[in-house]
Amino acid sequence: MASSSSAPLVQFAPLHTAIAPAFWSALAAHKIEHAQLADAPLAVRAHYAPARRVLDRQTGSEVPLPPSMVVEGEALGDGAHQQQHQASHRWSSRDALRCLQGYDASPCLYSLPPHVCPAWGTLKNFNTVEEFKTADKQAFFNAEARSMYEAMLSAADPTPHLARFLVLSFADLKRYRFVHWFAFPALVSKPAWTLQGEWKSVSDALGAGSYEALAKAVEARRREQKADSASGAFFLVGTSNGQPRLGDVADFASFFQAGEEPTVGFVDPSAAASEPGWPLRNLLALMAARFGVRRVRVLCWKDDIGESTQRRSVIGDVALPEDAAEGERVTGAHGSAPLATQPGLPDVPLAVGWERNSSGKLAPKLADLGPLMDPRRLADQAVDLNLKLMRWRIMPEINLERVQQTKCLLLGAGTLGCYVARTLLGWGVRHITLVDSSRVSFSNPVRQPLFDFDDCLEGGKPKAECAAARLRAIYPGVTATGVQLNVPMPGHPIQSGAEAQVRQDVETLEKLIDEHKVVYLLMDSRESRWLPTLLGAAKNKLVINAALGFDTYLVMRHGAGPDAERDAAAKTLPANERRLGCYYCNDIVAPTDSLTDRTLDQMCTVTRPGLAAIAGASAVELMVSVLQHKDGVSAPAATGPARGNEAPLASSDPAQSGSCLGLVPHQIRGFLAQFSNMLLVGGAYDLCTACSPAVIDAYKRDGFAMLKKAFNDESFLERVTGLDK
Amino acid sequence: MASSSSAPLVQFAPLHTAIAPAFWSALAAHKIEHAQLADAPLAVRAHYAPARRVLDRQTGSEVPLPPSMVVEGEALGDGAHQQQHQASHRWSSRDALRCLQGYDASPCLYSLPPHVCPAWGTLKNFNTVEEFKTADKQAFFNAEARSMYEAMLSAADPTPHLARFLVLSFADLKRYRFVHWFAFPALVSKPAWTLQGEWKSVSDALGAGSYEALAKAVEARRREQKADSASGAFFLVGTSNGQPRLGDVADFASFFQAGEEPTVGFVDPSAAASEPGWPLRNLLALMAARFGVRRVRVLCWKDDIGESTQRRSVIGDVALPEDAAEGERVTGAHGSAPLATQPGLPDVPLAVGWERNSSGKLAPKLADLGPLMDPRRLADQAVDLNLKLMRWRIMPEINLERVQQTKCLLLGAGTLGCYVARTLLGWGVRHITLVDSSRVSFSNPVRQPLFDFDDCLEGGKPKAECAAARLRAIYPGVTATGVQLNVPMPGHPIQSGAEAQVRQDVETLEKLIDEHKVVYLLMDSRESRWLPTLLGAAKNKLVINAALGFDTYLVMRHGAGPDAERDAAAKTLPANERRLGCYYCNDIVAPTDSLTDRTLDQMCTVTRPGLAAIAGASAVELMVSVLQHKDGVSAPAATGPARGNEAPLASSDPAQSGSCLGLVPHQIRGFLAQFSNMLLVGGAYDLCTACSPAVIDAYKRDGFAMLKKAFNDESFLERVTGLDK
Repeated sequence: MASSSSAPLVQFAPLHTAIAPAFWSALAAHKIEHAQLADAPLAVRAHYAPARRVLDRQTGSEVPLPPSMVVEGEALGDGAHQQQHQASHRWSSRDALRCLQGYDASPCLYSLPPHVCPAWGTLKNFNTVEEFKTADKQAFFNAEARSMYEAMLSAADPTPHLARFLVLSFADLKRYRFVHWFAFPALVSKPAWTLQGEWKSVSDALGAGSYEALAKAVEARRREQKADSASGAFFLVGTSNGQPRLGDVADFASFFQAGEEPTVGFVDPSAAASEPGWPLRNLLALMAARFGVRRVRVLCWKDDIGESTQRRSVIGDVALPEDAAEGERVTGAHGSAPLATQPGLPDVPLAVGWERNSSGKLAPKLADLGPLMDPRRLADQAVDLNLKLMRWRIMPEINLERVQQTKCLLLGAGTLGCYVARTLLGWGVRHITLVDSSRVSFSNPVRQPLFDFDDCLEGGKPKAECAAARLRAIYPGVTATGVQLNVPMPGHPIQSGAEAQVRQDVETLEKLIDEHKVVYLLMDSRESRWLPTLLGAAKNKLVINAALGFDTYLVMRHGAGPDAERDAAAKTLPANERRLGCYYCNDIVAPTDSLTDRTLDQMCTVTRPGLAAIAGASAVELMVSVLQHKDGVSAPAATGPARGNEAPLASSDPAQSGSCLGLVPHQIRGFLAQFSNMLLVGGAYDLCTACSPAVIDAYKRDGFAMLKKAFNDESFLERVTGLDK
Repeated sequence: MASSSSAPLVQFAPLHTAIAPAFWSALAAHKIEHAQLADAPLAVRAHYAPARRVLDRQTGSEVPLPPSMVVEGEALGDGAHQQQHQASHRWSSRDALRCLQGYDASPCLYSLPPHVCPAWGTLKNFNTVEEFKTADKQAFFNAEARSMYEAMLSAADPTPHLARFLVLSFADLKRYRFVHWFAFPALVSKPAWTLQGEWKSVSDALGAGSYEALAKAVEARRREQKADSASGAFFLVGTSNGQPRLGDVADFASFFQAGEEPTVGFVDPSAAASEPGWPLRNLLALMAARFGVRRVRVLCWKDDIGESTQRRSVIGDVALPEDAAEGERVTGAHGSAPLATQPGLPDVPLAVGWERNSSGKLAPKLADLGPLMDPRRLADQAVDLNLKLMRWRIMPEINLERVQQTKCLLLGAGTLGCYVARTLLGWGVRHITLVDSSRVSFSNPVRQPLFDFDDCLEGGKPKAECAAARLRAIYPGVTATGVQLNVPMPGHPIQSGAEAQVRQDVETLEKLIDEHKVVYLLMDSRESRWLPTLLGAAKNKLVINAALGFDTYLVMRHGAGPDAERDAAAKTLPANERRLGCYYCNDIVAPTDSLTDRTLDQMCTVTRPGLAAIAGASAVELMVSVLQHKDGVSAPAATGPARGNEAPLASSDPAQSGSCLGLVPHQIRGFLAQFSNMLLVGGAYDLCTACSPAVIDAYKRDGFAMLKKAFNDESFLERVTGLDK
């Protein structure tokens, strides 16, 4: 065959991306969980298939689909893979021209079906939209092209480098919008390849029998392809004893026997008979640059495995014009490649291949997944995101999962309970149970941030369930429950006929405390805290206690129960490392009825309105600090550093606190009249009416019978503890 | 006429109370505003009318109404009156038996129509329901009876003492439920008065002509009644020249001429012809005890003024049985009163008259106004109540009205804006405007306590209006407005074509700042605070600024504007009394674009979730403290007292603060890692880019033209202030 420069140029059908929304989710997750602020390029795996068509049900005819590069949700692999990948490939975003050096196929990303055509890509995700906008995108593209070119010349298996791609992106994780621009760099041949004759059906060219034999061989090769190779997508085609014989493209120089027409085959994503797909472009560039090929027969394999009813593959001859002289020549390994180079950058081959957007313009695309996603899932991700951002820069060591998985029981759904619940939501806590016995009244909504005016109508909704419902309305992902319950109190004798109810209330409370890890005491009376204090100590739960005065507050954690102390035989430790006290450890009398005869201002807990927000939020922050401490509920107490106007200690002094979040105090007393706090420490009191060994042991031994005595008899607790002596 | 012990006893129709709901509202208001915890008895004014009937529309016949003592909303007068009343009457709740000594008619309570029958009563409102339950109610009753008796014997005008009443009550102000028990003490005659013959129509007894003449005289007397007398309700009836002649009951001994049948008349609330109303009981007791009357003719006047079509008054003769001897005798002034005394308390006359409840039992009644009231009004009152309780005991001097009337502008409706707005609601602030330019996103609701999940759907509601709508849903009494607005920023040049919009945004902001007293800066960037800082200083507004770090916050108030300083010629004052600095006073460069190229963790203000609640609430508490300071926006700054674990200063050291709420600091810096705060003071900086005289003067001179230069030119502000030198 004679080649002629007047022959038509080969027209290549460009690739289009088909990106699964799951890919963007995976990118978002990778950014939040692993990459964070790091912006090293990521390895991406994609794939394509032979020419696809769909049946048009109206006309009954088949419609070709555009050649698609498919990017699936698994395309990034897992974070560990990316780290390994980056370590071995020395990515550097600072020098885009060199950052892609040493690239090669990464075998372990994810398992594609063996017969698809794999493609390896590089994703550069910028941290800000400004960076994305102003980045020198062509430099990234050039680096990719150069890297491809070098691999073509020298790689033992050059096939992974023939359908490489590049993605530049910015992920707006708040709105779930992904600006991105794909490129499929194809090296430019100058002069361009021409078609000698026309693309012919393989059936016509070889006959049906040979076609079937060839199909069998191609399918076998595709099935045998290894994970780090595209050997099933690019191959040589010869014949031996009338049977098709396939080989590796790297063996071009030695593969063909005398008399064989050198033929290269590739799996062709293009459905158009006369327009081979983009991957052929680099395959021909490889042939020219590495093997000096100037004309070759090309098999465009367009039949997918299992689609044997209609054969569509075509074959044709392509050639570089003999008489072309104007093209700059790049000296490759074999000294004969007619590839063009970048003007002004003679060592960088000229390449094309930026994807056009939906308007046909050379510009980025936007994947706006926000409207597609289940809003609840968007909320889940958004809430997670805000927390996980902490790990990006400020506090990589924080254990957010431990906080999120902590089940919290809030006794009291009033001013404090509402603020505590809201702050827990902010920390991502997913399981919140509120206990209260009252109904929402008209004075509540302006101070209790889970209630609205409408909740007060018709006598008011039960507070606990109303608060829980609101938590679910704020964040559907939370498991929030409201329990209407009176907490029995010492010195409030059981009314005649009410014992069964009180017993049931106690059992409910015991069960609730068993089911939760942290118990918040947020009631408006002193003695209602006694029973949960006791139960918390008996069950060794973390108890967080908050109480309000007019312009002062107390936020404290109770110490571990006496069992924990016995285990540690801790009595010889210094005061701040002994078991910490509970709310009642400073008392020298037992709690008793203080409620019956209170005036309105005593009943309503008259406080400065800002106080509850401060105390409630501080209570949750104290809990989170404890949860970050390695000793948890037994964490020793930090004492305050704040000396007037001196600068405070560094925020994470491990000697003081052992928590990445800073100090883990025992008691915080706040004084709003001075806008100041004090940190106090108090050890457990041996005669404490709520947490001392005598009380806990009596409860464990006698259960409800012991509690009943405490409810009915004001002096019982003082006798049990010996306080009466 | 002969009297006989076999004659039927006179039956008296007891009084029923008819209490206007407004009376309970007035009691609630008095308790909240004036009495607070004081429980001294209150003077109450009531009234009754002659026998009332209503037409039964079905039968066409008239139905008698029970005799009613009407208590109106004005019955308590105003608070000042009660104080004056209490001062002059030396109420003492500690000694109920003596507390009512010296009682007399109180003329100035409120103006009844002159012709009604006035009644004076005493209301003892207990502070707690327990006190109400356990009070020795009979002792209060006895005191009332004894006081009545003494007045009957000696008062120049005894008529105000003949229909006196006592009210014991407990006001549950949270639920608007009023437990109460009325008594109309009537002295018991032993033996009892008997009816001689029967009650006869006045028409029958005197003839129609005489009846009309008598009616004319009674009506005239009732119209002439003075405010401190019931002379129109109780009178003597004689005749002179065939014409009726009325006189004061105190003149009984001298009024009747020879041959006249001594007749006492009273306006009779009873509609039953044969059952005179309760007031007759004490009128007869007066006659017997003071004048030794043992038989008398009684005119029961049952015709109201203006009801002349149907005359119903009756007349009859009553007498004490001659032969009764078993009654104990009390020695009155005239030595002849047949009144009974309390067994065991011989100087206390026996009296009856507790009102029965709706079940006919001698027990308190409950007025439950909650369900009747407009829920919005209930909410208004409940919100007010919680605040006003502060004045009852803890902080009588606090000026709540000044806080409530403060119009607040919140720039930013994010995490801080939401918490600030909620705390303002808690303080009763009624006018809140929020400004924001963004929409509610899925990460917001768990951290921004005015938004729910649903607010994020369909792209998210505009934040400012969504937050305002939620404030109204929480408390319908608030005037909350949301304004969607971008605050122009220095170093963010005006885009071409956008100048008209920027100018309009500036004008909107200027107008908003003019309309509000306090401006909160709650945005998430530094440079967005510049323009409102400048405008606040130019317009001398109180500017409260809050900003969050990861676990630190700044809450500060800006100092007064330079004009205030010039007025005060204050430069010679010590540092903490000079004009205080603004947010920019520590800067030595002008604010400029810090937003364009931020990573996600910088954009989202990654903070510990509890921080915003603490900072937002502290910002409002700082505002309230400033508002309570006599110098307001110019209040000097307090420095922190907190020295580590030392006890803080007393909460209202006027030398330090001048505010009843305590210190009024300039800057509060909070460190959540240490649960500590520091108070800092910084004076205004002469070269400040936001509040210095040079900047303010340039703005006042050039307006938008000056601002435009600042937006467009990063170095403009440094040139204006001289910072560039």
